This record gives sequence, C-alpha cells and structure tokens, in this order.
Amino acid sequence: MGLLSEGLTQVVIPVSALVGIGFALLQWFLVSKVKVSPAYGGEHNGYKDRLIEEDQEEGIDNHEVSIKCAEIQNAISVGATSFLFTQYKYLGVFMGVFGVIIFLFLGSVKGFSTKNEPCTYNTGSTCKPALANAFFTTVAFLLGALTSVLSGFLGMKIATYANARTTLEARKGVGKAFTTAFRSGAVMGFLLAANGLLVLFVSIHLFKLYYGDDWEGLYESITGYGLGGSSMALFGRVGGGIYTKAADVGADLVGKVERNIPEDDPRNPAVIADNVGDNVGDIAGMGSDLFGSYAESSCAALFVASISSFGISHDYVAMSYPLIISSMGIVVCLITTLFATDLLEIKNVSEIEPSLKRQLLISTVLMTAGIAAVTFVALPSEFTLFNFGATKTVKNWHLFSCVSIGLWAGLVIGYITEYYTSNAYSPVQDVADSCRTGAATNVIFGLALGYKSVIIPIFAIAIAIYVSFSLAAMYGIAVAALGMLSTIATGLAIDAYGPISDNAGGIAEMAGMSHEIRERTDALDAAGNTTAAIGKGFAIGSAALVSLALFGAYVSRAGIKSVDVLTPKVFIGLIVGAMLPYWFSAMTMKSVGSAALKMVEEVRRQFNTIPGLMEGTAKPDYATCVKISTDASLREMIPPGALVMLTPLIAGTFFGVETLAGILAGSLVSGVQVAISASNTGGAWDNAKKYIEAGVSEHAKALGPKGSDPHKAAVIGDTIGDPLKDTSGPSLNILIKLMAVESLVFAPFFAAHGGLIFKWL
Amino acid sequence: MGLLSEGLTQVVIPVSALVGIGFALLQWFLVSKVKVSPAYGGEHNGYKDRLIEEDQEEGIDNHEVSIKCAEIQNAISVGATSFLFTQYKYLGVFMGVFGVIIFLFLGSVKGFSTKNEPCTYNTGSTCKPALANAFFTTVAFLLGALTSVLSGFLGMKIATYANARTTLEARKGVGKAFTTAFRSGAVMGFLLAANGLLVLFVSIHLFKLYYGDDWEGLYESITGYGLGGSSMALFGRVGGGIYTKAADVGADLVGKVERNIPEDDPRNPAVIADNVGDNVGDIAGMGSDLFGSYAESSCAALFVASISSFGISHDYVAMSYPLIISSMGIVVCLITTLFATDLLEIKNVSEIEPSLKRQLLISTVLMTAGIAAVTFVALPSEFTLFNFGATKTVKNWHLFSCVSIGLWAGLVIGYITEYYTSNAYSPVQDVADSCRTGAATNVIFGLALGYKSVIIPIFAIAIAIYVSFSLAAMYGIAVAALGMLSTIATGLAIDAYGPISDNAGGIAEMAGMSHEIRERTDALDAAGNTTAAIGKGFAIGSAALVSLALFGAYVSRAGIKSVDVLTPKVFIGLIVGAMLPYWFSAMTMKSVGSAALKMVEEVRRQFNTIPGLMEGTAKPDYATCVKISTDASLREMIPPGALVMLTPLIAGTFFGVETLAGILAGSLVSGVQVAISASNTGGAWDNAKKYIEAGVSEHAKALGPKGSDPHKAAVIGDTIGDPLKDTSGPSLNILIKLMAVESLVFAPFFAAHGGLIFKWL
Repeated sequence: MGLLSEGLTQVVIPVSALVGIGFALLQWFLVSKVKVSPAYGGEHNGYKDRLIEEDQEEGIDNHEVSIKCAEIQNAISVGATSFLFTQYKYLGVFMGVFGVIIFLFLGSVKGFSTKNEPCTYNTGSTCKPALANAFFTTVAFLLGALTSVLSGFLGMKIATYANARTTLEARKGVGKAFTTAFRSGAVMGFLLAANGLLVLFVSIHLFKLYYGDDWEGLYESITGYGLGGSSMALFGRVGGGIYTKAADVGADLVGKVERNIPEDDPRNPAVIADNVGDNVGDIAGMGSDLFGSYAESSCAALFVASISSFGISHDYVAMSYPLIISSMGIVVCLITTLFATDLLEIKNVSEIEPSLKRQLLISTVLMTAGIAAVTFVALPSEFTLFNFGATKTVKNWHLFSCVSIGLWAGLVIGYITEYYTSNAYSPVQDVADSCRTGAATNVIFGLALGYKSVIIPIFAIAIAIYVSFSLAAMYGIAVAALGMLSTIATGLAIDAYGPISDNAGGIAEMAGMSHEIRERTDALDAAGNTTAAIGKGFAIGSAALVSLALFGAYVSRAGIKSVDVLTPKVFIGLIVGAMLPYWFSAMTMKSVGSAALKMVEEVRRQFNTIPGLMEGTAKPDYATCVKISTDASLREMIPPGALVMLTPLIAGTFFGVETLAGILAGSLVSGVQVAISASNTGGAWDNAKKYIEAGVSEHAKALGPKGSDPHKAAVIGDTIGDPLKDTSGPSLNILIKLMAVESLVFAPFFAAHGGLIFKWL
Repeated sequence: MGLLSEGLTQVVIPVSALVGIGFALLQWFLVSKVKVSPAYGGEHNGYKDRLIEEDQEEGIDNHEVSIKCAEIQNAISVGATSFLFTQYKYLGVFMGVFGVIIFLFLGSVKGFSTKNEPCTYNTGSTCKPALANAFFTTVAFLLGALTSVLSGFLGMKIATYANARTTLEARKGVGKAFTTAFRSGAVMGFLLAANGLLVLFVSIHLFKLYYGDDWEGLYESITGYGLGGSSMALFGRVGGGIYTKAADVGADLVGKVERNIPEDDPRNPAVIADNVGDNVGDIAGMGSDLFGSYAESSCAALFVASISSFGISHDYVAMSYPLIISSMGIVVCLITTLFATDLLEIKNVSEIEPSLKRQLLISTVLMTAGIAAVTFVALPSEFTLFNFGATKTVKNWHLFSCVSIGLWAGLVIGYITEYYTSNAYSPVQDVADSCRTGAATNVIFGLALGYKSVIIPIFAIAIAIYVSFSLAAMYGIAVAALGMLSTIATGLAIDAYGPISDNAGGIAEMAGMSHEIRERTDALDAAGNTTAAIGKGFAIGSAALVSLALFGAYVSRAGIKSVDVLTPKVFIGLIVGAMLPYWFSAMTMKSVGSAALKMVEEVRRQFNTIPGLMEGTAKPDYATCVKISTDASLREMIPPGALVMLTPLIAGTFFGVETLAGILAGSLVSGVQVAISASNTGGAWDNAKKYIEAGVSEHAKALGPKGSDPHKAAVIGDTIGDPLKDTSGPSLNILIKLMAVESLVFAPFFAAHGGLIFKWL
C-alpha cells in the first residue's frame, strides 16, 4: 500500500480539477479586462483609460477601430457558433445511432442475459452481467461525446472572445498582445483538462454505486468514455478541417495569387469563412482531439490497472494513479503558465518562440518532479500486473520511469518539430531557398523535409515504448501516454495561442489597422504555426502510445494469445491497416480540393460580377462563402468518418479478432508516419512563406518581397500544405486512436461472435 | 512423384532459356534492319530501299535527318556507357567489400570451422560446414551482382540502339514505330529473363558438384544470388534515378518554364543529359530491379522448397518447380509477343494503349494454362511443407492456385495502375481539370489520386497473400511472387518500350523533324508513361510478395518461434521499419532537388553567357550538364544505399533477430503504400500534362494549349512527380526486398551472435 489514503485521494482529484477551472476563470477575467465595445463609450469603457498611459499609435480613430473589431469579431463568432450547432445536429443523430449499436452489440454478447457472470480476469469472483456493461458503456460513450463537444464549443467561444482583444492589445506592443493570446489559450487548456478529469472522476464514482467491487466491469464500461470523446473528435477535426481549408485555400488562390490583394483583405468574399474556419477547425477540432487523447489514455490506463493486482486487491489509491497524475499535471501547468504570463514578460518579437519553447521545458522539468512525488506517495513499492497471461512484478520506480519517459519523449518530439517547422533554422530556410527555382522544387524540398522530420520522433516513440513496455507491459505504455499528455493544459494553451493570433491578424487587416499592427500579429502567428506543429506532434506521439495501450488492452480483452505477423489472418490485417491512412487522406484531401474549387469559383464570380468590390466601395457577399464551406464540410466529413468507424466493426465481425489486431497494428505504425510528415511539411511551407514575407535576414530579403517569383512559389507550397497540416495530418491520429478504442469496446462481441467469413469458409 | 523425369527437367530448363535468348536475338535482328547510317549510303544502305515503297514525308532531307539521328543516338549512347562504367567502378569496390563482409560474417557463425555440421531442418543428416556456405554465398552474391550489372548494361545498349530507329520508323507511321519500340523492349525482356534463369540453373548445378545431397546448404548459399542482384539494382535505381531526374527537372524548369522552348529542344544544354538519364535510370535501373525481383523470388522459393519434403526426399523435379515455372513463362511470353508484333498490328494512336493492355491479358491467360500444365506434370499430387515448426500437407492443385493467384493479382494491379495513370479515364482528367485553379490544386488532387490508387492493389495483394499463405504457407507466397513475375519478359518489354519512345521523341525534336513525327512519338510516349507505371506496379506488387516470402524464410532460418507484435522488441522494429521508407525517400528526393538546383543554375548560366544559344546559332555545352548529373548521382546514391544495406546488419547485430523481423514487416507494409502512391501520383501528373498538351477532347482543349495557365500548373505537377515516380517510388520496392534478402543471408550469423545490446543490458 502507498502512503496516500483513499479518502485523501477522493479529495485531491476533484480539488485539482476545480483549481484548474478556477485558474481558467481567472485568466478569462484578465483577458476580459481588454474592452471591445460596439458602443461609443466614455470613461466607463476602461479601455480608454488604459490607452492614455500607453503608446497611442492608433489613437486618432481608436473608437472606430474598436467598433470595427467588435463587428468583425461578432461576425466570426456568429459564423462559428452557427456552424457548430449545425454540425452538432448531425453528430446528435450519429451519437444516438451509434449508442444503440453499442448497446445491441455488447448486449448480445451473452444474449441479453441479466444474470451475473464469472469474472474474466479475477478468476473465482462474480462480475455484473454483460447487459449491464452494455448499458453503462453506452452511457459512458454519450458522456464522453458530450464532454468532447462541450470542450470544442467552449474553446471556440473563448477563442472568438479573445481574437479581437489580441488585435487591440497589439497596438500597445507585441508583449501585451502575446500575453492576451496566451492567457486565452490557457483558459481553453485548463478548462479542457480540468473538465475532462472531473467528468471522468464523477462518472467513475457514479458507476461504482452500481458496480461495487466489480472493477473489471466498471472500467470496461468506462472505456466507452474514450470512444465517445474520440468519435466526436474525429468529426470535429475532419469537418472543421475541411471547413477551414476550403475557405483558406479558396481565399488564397483568388485573393493572393490572382488578385494580388493581401491575406485577410476585407474585399475577399471568403475572408470571414476563413476566419470562422480557424475557430471551428484549429480550435474546436483540436480541443476535441486532445480531449479525446486524454480521455482514451486515462481509460486505457484505468482498464489495464483494473485487471492488474490493483483491481483484484481493490487498492483504490493505486487504481486512481492515472487520475492523480493528471491532477498533478494541472497544478504543474498552472505554475508553468505563470512564467509566461507574469514572471518573464515578452519584450520583442524574437522572444516569442523561445518563450513558448520554454513553457514546454519548464512544464516537463516540473512535471518530472511531480510524477516522482505522486508515484512514491500513491503506489505500493511492488505489485503485479497481467502481461498476456503471465504475471509480471513491477516496482513503483518502474512506473515513475514509464511516465517520465513518455513525458520526455513528448518534449523531444516537440523540439524536433520546432526545428523542422520554425523559420529560425536551416530546414525551413532551405525550403524557402528552393523557391528560387519555382514551386516544383519548393514542393520537392517540402515533401522531403516532412519525410525526414519523421526519423527522430519515431526513435523517441520507439525508445519510450521499449522502456515502458519492458518495465510494466501494457500498463507501462498507457501511463507513458498519460505522461506525455500530463502537461496537456500547457500544450493546449500554446496550441490554441496560434489560431487566436492568426485571427487577430485577420481582424487587424479587416479593420484597416496600420501595417505595424499587422506585422506584430504576423510575428505572433509565425510562432503560432510552429506551436501548432508542436501541438500536432504531441497529439500524434501521444496517439501512438495511447493506441498501442488500447491495442494491448483489446488483445487482452479479446482473448488473443499472440499477434503473430506470420499468420495469414494477421498479416493481411497488417498490410490493409497500413493502407487505411492513405485511403483516409485521399478522401479528406480530395474533399478539401473539391470544396476549394467551388470556393474559388464563387470568389471569382463575386469579383467579376459585384461592381466596386476591388475598389472597396461595395461589400462582398460573405454569407455565400460561409455556406459553401459549411455544406462541403458537413457532406464530406461523412465518408472518412464512416471509414474509420466501420472498419473495426466490419473487420471484427467478418474477419475476426486476429485480422482486426493486424489492422490496428498496421494503421498505427503507418499512420504515425503519414501524420507527422504531413503536419511538418505543411508547417514548413507556411513558415517558408512567412520567412520570405518577413524578410528579416539578407537571405530572406533576396528571396522577397511579397509578389516576387520566389514568394509566389512559396504561396503555392503553403496552399498545398493547408490540407496536409490542418485536415488529413491531424485527423490521422484520431483514426489510429479511434479504431483502437472502438475495437476495445467491441472486443467482447468480436470474441464471442466475430470472424464470420472464416467460420463460413 | 510427378510425371516429369529428372533428366528431362535438366534439359527443359536450359533449353527454354536458350529459346528465350534466341528469340531476343531474332527481335534484335528485325530491329537492326532499320538502318541508321552516319555515312551517305547508296543502295547498300537498305534503309533507302524500304523507304521508296513507303510514304515519304521527310523524304527531302532524309539522309541529313538520318545522319543527325545517328549523331544524337551516338551522343546518348556514349554518355550512357560512360556513366555506367563510372558507376560500375564504384559498384566494383562495393561488391568487393561486401563480399568480404558476407564471407567473414557467415564464416564466423561456427568460428570458421571446416567440420561438417548436423543439418538444421533435415534432422539426423549431416550438412556441409558453415564455412563452405560462407564461401558459396559469397560466390553466389558476386554472380548475382554481375548478372544484374550485365542485365542493366545490355538493356541500355539495346535501348540506345533502338531509340533512333524508332524515330526513323515514326516517319512511316505510328504502327511501324510502335513495332520497332516494342520489339526492342522485347529484346531486353527476353534477354534478361532467359539470362537470369540460365545463370541460376548453371550455378545450382555447379554448386551441386560440391554440395551433393546437402540441399539445405546449397539453397542457403544460392540466396546470395538474390542479394547480389538486388544490391546492384538498388544502386542502379537510385543512382540512375537521381541522374535522370536531376537532368529532367533541371531541363524542364529552365527550358519549358522560363525560356518557353519545347521539351528536348537541342538548344537546351541539359537535353543530352536528360536523354542519357532515361537510359541509365529507366532502362538500366529498371532492368536490374526486375532481374533482382526475379532472382530473389526464385531463391526464396528454392530455399523454402529445400527445407520442405522435396528437399528432404531429394525430389529434384519438384525442387526445380520454381525454375520450371520461369521456363514456361519464357515460352508463354514468346507467344504473347507475336500478338503485338505480328498478329495484331497497330494502325493508329488510339490502339497503342489497348494493345499494350492486351499483352498483359494474353500473357496472363496463357500463363494460367501453362502453370496448370507445369504443376500437374512436375509435382507429386501431395507432399509436406514445413510451416514454422509444424508440417503441412499440400496438394499440387494448391500450388497451382498459389501461382495463379499471384499472376492474376499482378494483372489486377496492372489494370488498376493503368486506370489511375492513363489520361483516358476520369482520375487523370480530374487532376488535369484541377489545373484550372493553379498548381496548388493540381498537387493536392495528384497526391489524393496517388493515395487512393493504393486501395485496390493492397486488397489484391492481401487476398493473394491470404490464399497462398493458407494453402501452402511461405512456399505458397514464394511461388505466388514467382507467378506474378512469370510473365516478366512481357512486363519488361512493355516497360522498356516507354523510355525508348521517350528517347525517340527527344531525337525527333533534336534532329529538327516535323511536328507530325513528334506527335506520333508523343503518343507512343504517353502510353509509355502508363506502361511505366504498370511496370512499377508489378515491381512493387511482386516485391511485396517476394519480401514476405524472404521474410518467412528469414524467420525460419533465424529460429524465431513467432513474430508477436505485442513484444517490445518486435514492436519497436515494426514502427522503425515503417519509418525507413520515409527516411529513404527524404534522402532521394532531397538529392534530386539539390542536383536539379545545380542543373538549373548551369543551364541558366549557359543561356545567359553563350551568345546565340537561344537563336540556335551557337551550340550549348552539353558535357557540363552530363557531368553535373554524373557527379550528383554517384555522390548521392551512397547515403540511401548505405541506409538500406546497413540497417539489417546493425539491427541484427545489435538488436537481434526479433527486432529485425519487426523492421522487415514494418518496412514491407509501409513501403508498399509509399511506393505505389508515389509512382501513380507521378504518372498521373505526367499524363495530365500530356492530356492538356494533346488536346484531344473538348475538355482538354479548354485547358490548353501549351503555355496556358492550366498547362503551366500541369508542368509544375509533372516536375514534382519526376522524383516521386522515377527515383524514390521505384527504389522503395528494392528497399523492402533487399533488406529481406540480406536478413535471410545473414540470418545464421544474427541467430548465433546477434542482439548484442539486449545481451549487455
């Protein structure tokens, strides 16, 4: 037994979650002090008072600017809200249907019997009936789905609340703008992390009222929470990704390339759709995604723990280890955030990226100490785990090593991603340089960069897997994933910071603010591209670990003895699984391409038929562009979503548990590569373009300025990268996680009734 | 026992090979009747006599044209020969060093003991010492390497002999030109297939003089033949691929994009390098590659057979089954070729592609009957195979099914590849259509097309694997691969036809022949792009099967009980293996990009500094461009080559046989996807460009003509596709095959001394 008592544990976890929520509200309060008022205010505005003390660059018409910003912000917020609500209607139907499928499939495992069953792992004891598990899994699925939707929605609300405020603060300097954007990111990060933890904690305790000592059944049902979270994330990422990139690509192709007007120019009819897209895709989608990862890694760890000696000996504190790690993560991230917002203020542009990188380092170092404390307090010094039939003796410092190596592997992935996507280093500069000979070499170099950027992250993941697997089998993998995600609040904060800055720049342009303001928001945005890539790196790395843990849990639950590559059933699964990320990417990229073509035609039509549009005397029809993006994303998110959701069901039902195991392994090892390379290639192209535009070094100046041939080539690369980095790449990590968690949830059914084709043959 | 006697078998195999060689020589004789004479000839020229009877379009200056063609042909041939000889110097050093490594590693397995050992599989018998195996494996390696080099060299000689002849025949019509190009392809196809078979047959019989009844040792040593063939193929493909694409990309970027001069214009300084590249990359590289696949699948099948009951009961005929299949393949391909060259002559452009497709279908149908005949004549009706410890009873019709399903899976892959890369169907037309909105959408659609084109081939491969694996374990896979490659002579003929036509077009342009001739060669070339993609599809599909068979043989030879994904050693191998194709592609693409940048600078320099170059009054300096390509390819082929050759050695020695097994499986399932998508994306872009240029349909006309914005966008796509389809894509199948065969050859060493790191830990 560890040092922590059961009662204290039951207090520590929810209190940490509440502290996280409180901290988020505090940050929100600080952001809200920046006033964006549509009314002509007097002294009561507050904004004017503060501005008097500051450098008054935009002083002459600051009210007008403030009003314009408020209008634009409102348009973006209304657009995003309306899109999300439309999307939620579709998702509501999906949730209902899939909830029924879960209940029927799992209920049928023992023919809807209401009798108690002998336990699977804890031999000799009696567990609750399969029908109860079916019911509670369905409930957990719905809870996970709702929490995920709520996370995305809250994120979007916060981001659209913060974007105009960041723009207004940019008038006072880069530091103020950075703080506002970062604080807003923190609101999202802490709300999501704390909310996820709290819902999970409460659900477990409510389920426990029924399950009592049947921990197997309890945590098997809880995996539904991960499935719910991830399936919503899939649609959020894919739908949002198609939305944002259709608008972005469409706006850029006509605006920047054909009409030679700046990005986010208010004359461009697709500009509102583009900014809405940032919020529904990069914010809401990413929020759902990381929430899903977090929910799944917690569920995987809890499930594996429940079938270890913790579960069998009913050691509540040790069982709660995954949740205690997350609680500690919230506290550590809280301290880390203070470094960025209060202790070490940003003074100029060149400090932005180092400051964000420092956030990662600080949180990792602090968290390592945090993990040590938690591990030695919560865990007994030695315990046994199940390892596919065999038992394995594990010491508590083994688990400390597992969680830590996951955490540090995340840092390595983050830093490598930064190296390959930031324009401060040679890889992106080489890509920019290749624009001298045109778009073709730019694309060749960009693709090569993405492929190359896979190498070190894969070694980092492989080492983390080897160590944690060797020390504590699948439980080790699960807590390594949790370690990587333990600093999720900080990760989300720096990730959300990117699209907020991007939007802030858009608002500055649309509100007609001076070039200087735009330059400041551009600098924030360039760092944002890198942090977005880092965020995706974390998401992918953790997805790899989570999927492996879920895969292990699935194999265990499905009663497979070994997943031998050299059996035909497994091998065909492996090669088909490795193909799925390509199929999925083909769908999403084609969707973005087709939607972008429609958008281009509409934007061209407006430029050609609305008199005075180019001169700025007539207003474009923003609503039609918003409608094109909305319709395209809702229609096009269905086929890739169906591919991911149906593959495990079809494979498990018709080809059986071994083939499905092969599919999971194949899609995992192949999908990780495709996802990392796509994200980094896209990020590098975006920043190569920004490198040429910013023209900071001699080399960059030689390639520029905007409108030069190299710059045009860079814009083409950036446009190609859009669907890679914001649609297909980040959706792939959901693909691998979701298939794994879905297989785990349905494992009892597949084990009982699956493999129909091979039975017929 | 089957019906065929041992004596007859020993006659049938070499006779078939000799018939193949004879047929190749006959085709060569027919091609040589087209005279390309540098001297002003009289009646003895022969060419003039024939031309009198024909339509005399270029009649006025036919002698001058003929002389020009001869000059250009000579320049290309000299360039290609000189490059290959330089490359062979490097390869000679590599062969020597690697030969020593093989000998030392394998010799050390039993400490260089000269004593006989108990056999591994045929328990109770005595086998030759490990030192003998080391020696003979080294000899087989050198033989395989030399045969591979010879195959590539002969192919190049034939292609450079045929290109100008095709140009001259194009004056008489598409049909004549097609026949010449196709016959030349057949020369190469039959020479390679027959030569490979003959050398293998002779080697086995020479080795047998020493080995006697020790079939295990004999066929273990023979695997060195596959290793030699494939390692030369790797350097041939990579070096040749970098050579050709550096020149091609460089020539296009300045010539077509900047200077607006046609492809292959003699004013372009890189034009000779470009045409040399087609011969050293697409011809010599591809020849080595398919020879390697053929050698490896034969070796894999022979090795697995030697450890089955065939080997143990010394059934010579059944043991020779793989070679008899290949012999039958030569006969079937011979008949098939007659359909294209004699029975069904081409009359116009639209018949070219159907005719080539028909070749595939005819050879597949005939071969199915051939396989049936061979199987029932050569094999006993029932026999036993080893299946990882267990024995498995197999009937002869099971093996017929295995070989046939491999063959038909190849046809499916060929047809699907044609569908996705020919501009006669909607996928390429959609890509062409996306050029309306610029290069970015073209690239997005092209990448999506490549990803999508993976789906059906993977299912075809998966079904072939499942069926052949289930029926006859690893031997089934090996003969399925052999089935896919049994029509290699036809496959190579239609594959080699492409670059020959490409060169013919280049010669027409450089010799200043009329627009009409160029259009005819362009039509041949467009079909050639598709057949090149089909050839790559075959190469990749067969590589997948071959690698799996080799992988199985490796696992068996290394004494691994199962390759369980859920052990840490295997899983880290799997994920790192899946990363290798990306690492490899990053290297090769970056190499092409860098070399192309240098080429662009040189071509620009020449246009800027040589007065009268654009006007055609001064000659460009072709030699400098040839040198740039040569230097780049020789320098840049080393790192990717080292990656492939060293990975199995390092993984096996330091991480052991399980991790290496994981690496092989990972690189196989991931590499296949990358290779197929890269080849098809590149082929589709090339033909989308040709679709716009040819302007055959209303739709195509709306996108063109040459020089329009959509056409420029299409040229960018084509340029990006060059390294994908001709450098990294086709090299990847060598990567997966070569790592597998190398692992098999070194398996005794790894099993005895490998896994140092885990031993130290």
